[in-house]
This record gives sequence, structure tokens and C-alpha cells, in this order.
Amino acid sequence: MIILRARKKKWAPDELANNPRILRELTAYEGRSLKEYFDNDNPIHLEIGCGKGRFITETSIRHPEINFIAIERESVILAAAARHAQQMQAGSLIFVLEDVDNLLNYFKPGDISRLYINFCDPWEGKKKRAKRRLTHDNYLAKYEQLQIPEIFFKTDNRALFEGSLESFSRMKWTLANVSLDLHNSNMEDNIMTEYEEKFSPHGPIYRLEASLRTL
Amino acid sequence: MIILRARKKKWAPDELANNPRILRELTAYEGRSLKEYFDNDNPIHLEIGCGKGRFITETSIRHPEINFIAIERESVILAAAARHAQQMQAGSLIFVLEDVDNLLNYFKPGDISRLYINFCDPWEGKKKRAKRRLTHDNYLAKYEQLQIPEIFFKTDNRALFEGSLESFSRMKWTLANVSLDLHNSNMEDNIMTEYEEKFSPHGPIYRLEASLRTL
Repeated sequence: MIILRARKKKWAPDELANNPRILRELTAYEGRSLKEYFDNDNPIHLEIGCGKGRFITETSIRHPEINFIAIERESVILAAAARHAQQMQAGSLIFVLEDVDNLLNYFKPGDISRLYINFCDPWEGKKKRAKRRLTHDNYLAKYEQLQIPEIFFKTDNRALFEGSLESFSRMKWTLANVSLDLHNSNMEDNIMTEYEEKFSPHGPIYRLEASLRTL
Repeated sequence: MIILRARKKKWAPDELANNPRILRELTAYEGRSLKEYFDNDNPIHLEIGCGKGRFITETSIRHPEINFIAIERESVILAAAARHAQQMQAGSLIFVLEDVDNLLNYFKPGDISRLYINFCDPWEGKKKRAKRRLTHDNYLAKYEQLQIPEIFFKTDNRALFEGSLESFSRMKWTLANVSLDLHNSNMEDNIMTEYEEKFSPHGPIYRLEASLRTL
């Protein structure tokens, strides 16, 4: 995993200030329901760590019947994502400069119908670091608290995917549509992230869908 | 997956008749507990579909504190496995000519402490065939009925492993020690099957451990 570096960009502050798709924080909308914000009753799908926004922008264009929220904590990357979304005339999609750790502060149970986690940091090395993975038990417990019914996850990192399979099964999740080589499978309509396009020639892309068990 | 062919062997009938490690069927021991049969209180580990027996023989030699039962429904293959076990002076290991479908007829809940499934037939092709996989929901339900606390499973077949991850998580099992490339992982003490040694150069070997959920 190579982290996309957030180089300083001259245009970023202006983009952050003026792009209508960017919210500085969701807490500013406290007391106001997300449905009110979007002004419709459509389901909300959330991507955490959206990078430069290619995946969520393309997904929002293909699915006008869904509202999308993308969270990213690097402001320059978020600015690039929101700029891309505007240029591409994205669908119902907003971006929030936030840290996933605060998820429970700004969403209520039932708000989110689907969560996307794409090529998150695998936090390799010391075992302690694995706690920071977005598929670690601690995070899965948060998604469970928010009653998110399904999570779509992909990565090229083998150790991360192995650990994630274990975490999902250990926590309250059932696995479906597991692919151990996404680009050589029969999955249609895969929308690639920037990272995925760049690194998929070097090895398999792993993907799974996890459903919250109701029992 | 290439199935090991059971060619006719001149020595096989004699081996089947006289090898002291072979039981024609476990039902002959009805009314007699397995502990009585082994004449000790050690845990029993079961391999279903043992092929030519290299894995279970080597495992039994390394673990004299465990009783092993290996099931195989092809008599010529079973004969070869039992002959190999004798030649190698295997540990506490017996072979049974039986079909896995009858598992519930000859084991009681609690009899088996661990189940090994190595490179079972992936039953590729039509979806209906997947029902015959030894990791299909229907079989997992049988292992659950027998209260087998853990299953160690490996295969080189991607579709089989993908489906198995889903089945285990959907049924009553939690995944641990998942490896998506066993021969390039840090697992020590992997004992290879004949099949594994022959086919592992052609692609990754997948492995998982599944534990029966107690809740």
C-alpha cells in the first residue's frame, strides 16, 4: 500500500472554501436530519477515506436514486475529490472533512444503508498498528452500533484482507460475494479507484461484502 | 483441481483385507465408544477425503498425543493410504472406507475435536454441483450437529475457497488464521498433501481455520 501523498496545492484552500459539495463538518448539521439535508428520502451510502473521489463520483453518477457522503480527513485530498466531482457532474454526493473516529458523533443508527471501504491503510508492521485498520473489530463495532446493514470492502493488501475476513466473521457479520481476484472474476460493474487502477497489475484485488447479522 | 485417479492395483485387495489400520466401516463398532477403540482418552482428529494419506500419516507421527481417523470412499486410494501409513510407522491412526454423507451415522456429538478438509473436490460448473462441496452449508450443518469445535481447511481452488468463506460465516463458524497464500506466509509446520506439493507451483494455496461459535 502506498499512501497517496497530500502535496500542497495552490488551488486547494479556495476549493475547500467555495466548493458547494464540501461540508467542513457534519456536526454543523446537528439537529437537522440527513434526509432534510439531502431534501429527499433516498438511502444514504457512505464512503470512508474517499481519496481523490473517482470511485464515489462514478458511483453517484450511476445511481441517482442514492445519496452519497464521502469522508476524508486530508483536506487537500478532499479538495481534489470535490473538484473532480464537480467537473464530472456527480450525482447526489457531498464531501466531509472528518475523521472516521468521530463516526458515532455525527451519524445515528439507521442513517447509513451501505458503507464503502476501499483500499484503506493496511497499517502493516507491529501488531498494535492493526487496531487502526478500518476493518478492525473496534471499527466494526462502531458500524454495528450505527446498524449499517452492509459493507463493501476491497483492497490489494493480503494481510489486511486476511485479517478483515477474520474480524468480520468474529464480529456480527456474514460474508457474501467474496472475490480473491476481482479483476479475474465475473463481477460486472466494478468501479475502480485511482489506487486500484494503478496497483492492480501488481497482484490480485480482494473484495467482499459483509452483511450485519440480524440474529 | 485434478482428481487423483484410482487405478486398479493388484496389491489393493490384499491390503484392504489385511492392513490392521483399515476398518471396513465404523458402524461395525456400534455400541463401542471410539475411546474404547483407541484404548485411550486422547482427542480424536478426523480427516475426510484423505487421498493417499501423506498428510494424516505425517500429522499422526508429529502428534502422538492425538488419535486420528481418516475417511476415504475410494477403496484403492484408501489401501494406498493405509499401506503408506504402515510403511512410515504412523502414529495412532486408522482408516475407514466410508462416505462422508454417513458421518452422522457413525459419530456422536463430541467424538471429534478437529476436522481436516484438504483439497476436496471443488465441484465446479453448474451451481447445483456446489451442494456436494464438503464446505457447503449442508455439510457444515452436519459438523455443527457433531459439535466439532474446529475445522482446518485448505485448497488451491479459488472459487471453492471464496464460497467456503461465505458458508462458514453464514453458518455457525468464526474464521481464524486465514491465509490467501499459504506457501508465502509465515505459517510454520505446514504438512503438505501429495496434491499440494504437485499443484502449489501453479498458484496460491488457501487455508483457514474455522471455530464453532458457542453463542
